[in-house]
Amino acid sequence: MSGAVIVILSDINRRASSEGDNGRQNVGRSEAMSSRSPQFAMMDRYWRAANYVSVGQIYLMDNPLLREPLRAEHVKPRLLGHWGTTPGLNFIYVHLNRLIRERDLDMLFICGPGHGGPAMVANTWLEGTYSEIYPDIGRDSEGMKELFKQFSFPGGVPSHAAPETPGSIHEGGELGYALVHGFGAAFDNPDLVVACVVGDGEAETGPLAATWHSSKFLNPRTDGAVLPILHLNGYKIANPTLMGRMNDDDLRSLFIGYGYEPFFVEGSDPEPMHALMAATLDQVMERIRDIQTTARTTTGSTGLPRWPMIVLRSPKGWTGPKEVDGKKVEGFWRAHQVPVSNARDDDAHRQILEEWMRSYGPDELFDTEGRLLPEIAALAPEGTKRMGASPYANGGLLKKDLALPDWKSFAVDVPAPGGRTAEGTHILGAYLRDVVRLNAASRNFRLMGPDETSSNRLDAVFEATDRVWMEGIEPYDVHLAPEGRVMEVLSEHLCQGWLEGYLLTGRHGLFSCYEAFIHIVDSMVNQHAKWLKTSAELSWREPIASLNYLLTSHVWRQDHNGFSHQDPGFSDFVANKKADTVRLYFPPDANTLLWVADHCLRTWNRINVITAGKQPAPQWLTAQEAEGHCKAGAGIWEWASTCPADEEPDLVMACAGDVPTMETLAAVDLLVADSPGLRIRVVNVVDLMTLQARSEHPHGFSDETFDALFTKDRPVIFAYHGYPYLIHRLTYRRANHDNIHVHGFREEGTTTTPFDMAVMNQIDRFHLTLAALRWLPQLSQRSAQFSATLKKKLEEHKAYVYEHGEDMPEIRNWTWRREAGGAGVR
Amino acid sequence: MSGAVIVILSDINRRASSEGDNGRQNVGRSEAMSSRSPQFAMMDRYWRAANYVSVGQIYLMDNPLLREPLRAEHVKPRLLGHWGTTPGLNFIYVHLNRLIRERDLDMLFICGPGHGGPAMVANTWLEGTYSEIYPDIGRDSEGMKELFKQFSFPGGVPSHAAPETPGSIHEGGELGYALVHGFGAAFDNPDLVVACVVGDGEAETGPLAATWHSSKFLNPRTDGAVLPILHLNGYKIANPTLMGRMNDDDLRSLFIGYGYEPFFVEGSDPEPMHALMAATLDQVMERIRDIQTTARTTTGSTGLPRWPMIVLRSPKGWTGPKEVDGKKVEGFWRAHQVPVSNARDDDAHRQILEEWMRSYGPDELFDTEGRLLPEIAALAPEGTKRMGASPYANGGLLKKDLALPDWKSFAVDVPAPGGRTAEGTHILGAYLRDVVRLNAASRNFRLMGPDETSSNRLDAVFEATDRVWMEGIEPYDVHLAPEGRVMEVLSEHLCQGWLEGYLLTGRHGLFSCYEAFIHIVDSMVNQHAKWLKTSAELSWREPIASLNYLLTSHVWRQDHNGFSHQDPGFSDFVANKKADTVRLYFPPDANTLLWVADHCLRTWNRINVITAGKQPAPQWLTAQEAEGHCKAGAGIWEWASTCPADEEPDLVMACAGDVPTMETLAAVDLLVADSPGLRIRVVNVVDLMTLQARSEHPHGFSDETFDALFTKDRPVIFAYHGYPYLIHRLTYRRANHDNIHVHGFREEGTTTTPFDMAVMNQIDRFHLTLAALRWLPQLSQRSAQFSATLKKKLEEHKAYVYEHGEDMPEIRNWTWRREAGGAGVR
Repeated sequence: MSGAVIVILSDINRRASSEGDNGRQNVGRSEAMSSRSPQFAMMDRYWRAANYVSVGQIYLMDNPLLREPLRAEHVKPRLLGHWGTTPGLNFIYVHLNRLIRERDLDMLFICGPGHGGPAMVANTWLEGTYSEIYPDIGRDSEGMKELFKQFSFPGGVPSHAAPETPGSIHEGGELGYALVHGFGAAFDNPDLVVACVVGDGEAETGPLAATWHSSKFLNPRTDGAVLPILHLNGYKIANPTLMGRMNDDDLRSLFIGYGYEPFFVEGSDPEPMHALMAATLDQVMERIRDIQTTARTTTGSTGLPRWPMIVLRSPKGWTGPKEVDGKKVEGFWRAHQVPVSNARDDDAHRQILEEWMRSYGPDELFDTEGRLLPEIAALAPEGTKRMGASPYANGGLLKKDLALPDWKSFAVDVPAPGGRTAEGTHILGAYLRDVVRLNAASRNFRLMGPDETSSNRLDAVFEATDRVWMEGIEPYDVHLAPEGRVMEVLSEHLCQGWLEGYLLTGRHGLFSCYEAFIHIVDSMVNQHAKWLKTSAELSWREPIASLNYLLTSHVWRQDHNGFSHQDPGFSDFVANKKADTVRLYFPPDANTLLWVADHCLRTWNRINVITAGKQPAPQWLTAQEAEGHCKAGAGIWEWASTCPADEEPDLVMACAGDVPTMETLAAVDLLVADSPGLRIRVVNVVDLMTLQARSEHPHGFSDETFDALFTKDRPVIFAYHGYPYLIHRLTYRRANHDNIHVHGFREEGTTTTPFDMAVMNQIDRFHLTLAALRWLPQLSQRSAQFSATLKKKLEEHKAYVYEHGEDMPEIRNWTWRREAGGAGVR
Repeated sequence: MSGAVIVILSDINRRASSEGDNGRQNVGRSEAMSSRSPQFAMMDRYWRAANYVSVGQIYLMDNPLLREPLRAEHVKPRLLGHWGTTPGLNFIYVHLNRLIRERDLDMLFICGPGHGGPAMVANTWLEGTYSEIYPDIGRDSEGMKELFKQFSFPGGVPSHAAPETPGSIHEGGELGYALVHGFGAAFDNPDLVVACVVGDGEAETGPLAATWHSSKFLNPRTDGAVLPILHLNGYKIANPTLMGRMNDDDLRSLFIGYGYEPFFVEGSDPEPMHALMAATLDQVMERIRDIQTTARTTTGSTGLPRWPMIVLRSPKGWTGPKEVDGKKVEGFWRAHQVPVSNARDDDAHRQILEEWMRSYGPDELFDTEGRLLPEIAALAPEGTKRMGASPYANGGLLKKDLALPDWKSFAVDVPAPGGRTAEGTHILGAYLRDVVRLNAASRNFRLMGPDETSSNRLDAVFEATDRVWMEGIEPYDVHLAPEGRVMEVLSEHLCQGWLEGYLLTGRHGLFSCYEAFIHIVDSMVNQHAKWLKTSAELSWREPIASLNYLLTSHVWRQDHNGFSHQDPGFSDFVANKKADTVRLYFPPDANTLLWVADHCLRTWNRINVITAGKQPAPQWLTAQEAEGHCKAGAGIWEWASTCPADEEPDLVMACAGDVPTMETLAAVDLLVADSPGLRIRVVNVVDLMTLQARSEHPHGFSDETFDALFTKDRPVIFAYHGYPYLIHRLTYRRANHDNIHVHGFREEGTTTTPFDMAVMNQIDRFHLTLAALRWLPQLSQRSAQFSATLKKKLEEHKAYVYEHGEDMPEIRNWTWRREAGGAGVR
């Protein structure tokens, strides 16, 4: 699109913002749009009602309708609300209500600005959804009183949109994710319009700044629309905002650069603002329908559309006190939280509050019972068209189970343990390809990843689909298409946020990521975990599909990337979250990976973290064995042990993770060769949460089961994929915990060969064997020579890899040979 | 700035990019700038040398100068390099070298693109810095052989810029932070020009997208310049890039919107590209000097300048193989990593490699000894003007200790333990104000925070300085100025990244943040910790000032924000990092907070995390007591105990954190009232790392010291600020670990009063007391009635707060009264 076209498209708004009167001249093109129309007068009353109910939540615990003079005991003792952004949100909400009614829209409202809670609660209460969900908070004066009291009150609701808020899909709390959730919601929901309000505070965050590019992934043929409304009220807690102080030319240039057609709505006088907002919303909806109609009635590509967005400038704390104690409040950051403090004890402040609340004219808004007057209430949409009642905001209502292929049909044939190698994620790719195929018509499954689907060897999915790509496609490009099911962008934030939005509106997905860099989204996962925990306690919120991670390119195989790419700590982070929400899986080979992935895609309301390598690795279990093992979560590998499972061993060699499992088995080989009579039990852990006490986690083994695996008093050498502390933490309540010696990642790494990396962190076969010798003192006495041999091996290894750049042949070519004459009991 | 002016400013480049020939027509304005000038021919040879040395690193382990035909054994067995971005980086580097020489610049090079390691290593080797730092890698054929071999090789260097790379300030590994580090480096370095290359992959990340706004914080009078070079080579690992596929109009609009004046350099033919790049660099340097000169010779504000930036479009894998096996490589993503695979075993591939390397004409570049020919080498700057030798890239060389005030002069007077209340961060604010004042002339200290300096009650700093603000300032604004020392933006990523860049170039700072949201920068902290760990192992890297956090508005006081704002897990995350790098401090009151903050500002190469509340809270220790207690890291509070410190107690009540400490003391009050003879020892922990075994952490107590505090066998009720597991993890090697019962945050929270929050998580006085009764069975028998009383209190409490919205008076007004007749031994 050339610059000239952009100028024409934006012309009306350019005038609107440059004619000195905040563009009020460019409206009034029809009777309905006159700024003095009865419709706008009624909308203004609705807006005042919302503002009144918002202020009431912040301040009052009694006398909600001000039917008597405001006294100290009516005011909450602790004032903890947030006013600043609220009137602007109320303004937007009432205007979107008009749009929904007039055009019969399915609209989802996303409330990005921090602490917009009062507005969301006020509007959903006014439209009736709040009382339907929470019948104890009725649509009358008693309900209003409860509504007011519960806000920022013990056992009540927080000052931002939360799971408890009808119509919300988790835009409150930590800022930055409103718009990315909005796009996630719009993908594959062609009938949906997501109205997404972005605050100018939030607009300063990194994730939000990148999210604007998401329109380059939105397909007008098969996806819904996102209407971003950048709400510039100019201030954060105690500061101007960067965008609030940018001029309209720069803002216009910025959003044109991002790919949008910006429209400006600016002012502080309500009457012309109503007219301007309504006219602008009509215009942008026309634009959206034009884009969609063109795309949906044309065959072939219609290119990347230039979607509209709105820049709304309105004063912070709009319609609130202009000044308090001689200091500017409205239109300044002092309006951010509680504009009039201490209103319980300070008579003058309480008077300001009362005048402020009465300025909305509550008697013109609510009847004697405290009900919104019917002619005002009639402005709201009805039924599920109300934004608070949108099923899209309670995605579990819309969720359909995925059609899943039989994972066993992708299983690797494993004639004997270690008898062949395979690339786990490559095998999984074929399974995922069929997941894509089976759900192609439903369009309810997407794969996310930061440009790593191929690098992580899930390529087979490209036999069934492509990467989403709306920008230009060159003849030599491969696997790019507007309809793709794979979403790749070099931003873990966008992958995470899109997927969250997609899941929250009732769909399914998987995020594959380099293990080390998933920490980029720690805080987003944190917020999602909190959302799931709280949602699960709300009977009206239906379960949504689980948030599934495949972490690959993991810590033990960062051969060229080195230390910066080596971090297995995401599991530790996730393990802090509410137990019932979290699952950590470490499948040791391809068939177990298949079972785990299939299982995760069938679950709901969870965060499933699967860690599995992409490199060729030995395979241990047949499909049938994998199924039994994974269902148990952990178990004795009798075939790898040197004594029957029901006999007490001298030593337990435990492992979790693909590389640790291989090294453990190789260590068993070494130990057996040295001490053929040693009674070694091998325990493999797939589901890490089995280690935790049952009182701590629903997957936790009973003490009996745990002790049956790990014994009560035998040494356990535990080779673990991640930081060793997590194993200690999960097992510290177990009888045998003092004897569990964990080898894991210890923040030692560099550019190296695969085995050398293990050696650095002492989870290699030689160190594991030395550990076994150490904790079996009678053996270490006998095996002084063996220890010396192992240490010599370590030196040889180091010299070899530093010279040749690859592992010693005996390491590289090692295979599990116990079948061929070892002491295995299989 | 109006749109018209922008068009004029950008006019030359608009033509350059729109005239169909990649703008080559707009150069050649002087003889020196002719595309055929001898200077450009020589620069082209330098570039070819850098490309040759880059390819050699990826492929060769012998025959570096190709003085004999390339044979299989010359090629590395594992090819793990990255070619795609490298030739473009080499191109930029040689052009910046010219600029430095001609203008005598102090320039820092920041290499944002992923896997630009070969280019950085090649250029610093060519200019001589590499061999000065690593004398075993000389500037001859033997050195070249070693240089080649070490790349992506065991014990060698990774494929991205790393601590080992001369001239780097930690732009490698995880992507997104190049530009924010660049701005951090430029603040308060008025003579520095930071040339910052941003890859088009990295440009998709959230942090990078927000960072462009950093120019709104750059003061041309007192800061240096940042020259962003957005390097569009069009592809990531297996995908086009979003910006690579944007047209120049949209790109221009985007960067004008961000506040820059963009210049375009586009093409693939080296000859005209040299001329265009040189002319453009001259032009942007003139622009930078104009901006700086204007600002530095004018009094009063000169406003927010429009800084120049460059968009460089050049092919991915430029000058590499056009095609391999019939597939497009140059100018496509197949050039990303190793364009010609399997070159050791595949003769045809090895031939392509050899032809490719010989295409650079090594014999025209290096003499028979493998030394760069002197006439080529002469193009590089000299001494510390070489970008690999810039002292700014080894900030410890420039670091000066802060001038620090006497912290005791800010201490709270504490006549008796609990005898008064104070707001810890408010007290600290006064200390920080004087830190600002004492270092005002040095301009080497900044405070960062996401709009929370006031909210976190550090307001006193505004008596000494302001917030940095370069955009417009309104008459009613407060504490905004271009020269401010406080940096606020609603992006934890920017705060973190600016501070990292500031520290890495030899300065000091403190980042104050809401505790819950510091997780936003987990992955950045992770990378910084890895940088510090590796840097500390390099003798040539001088220590830098520590990265200091003040985490406040913490989990126990999110009264209105609720669950989304409640997460104390950053400590867990940080505790996974290399022990010697990390310190976790939980000062229980204001005087201990002062000591800890003062201490942290004196340290280097560490990550110090201070967690402390901002709310009014009881004060426990005098300045002198605080000093002794903090120096020890943890200790017995004999005055709060009911038996002398040297006598064995029945029970240890331990605490870490301000709220847990208060609740522990209140629990002691309750226990004493019920069981006056009970021998209770109170242990307070300030430095959490003292809990860890000395073998694990340098601050760890010896077992003797630990046992002397916590006993070997008495029950320990440990009230901890964060997730309880961390205490278990840190103490699991201690003799008494089975008896340590930790109460901490358990992912249970909502909107509540302060005390109710503690109750939910059972770290309140009632639950702590109940725990003590439980673990002293003889007591719990005797005290069935007492337990019932406590449980009734909990019920009363709940009813009270749900009705009144504030804590029961007996909780709210509780003070430590042991002085007035308790059993305390002080």
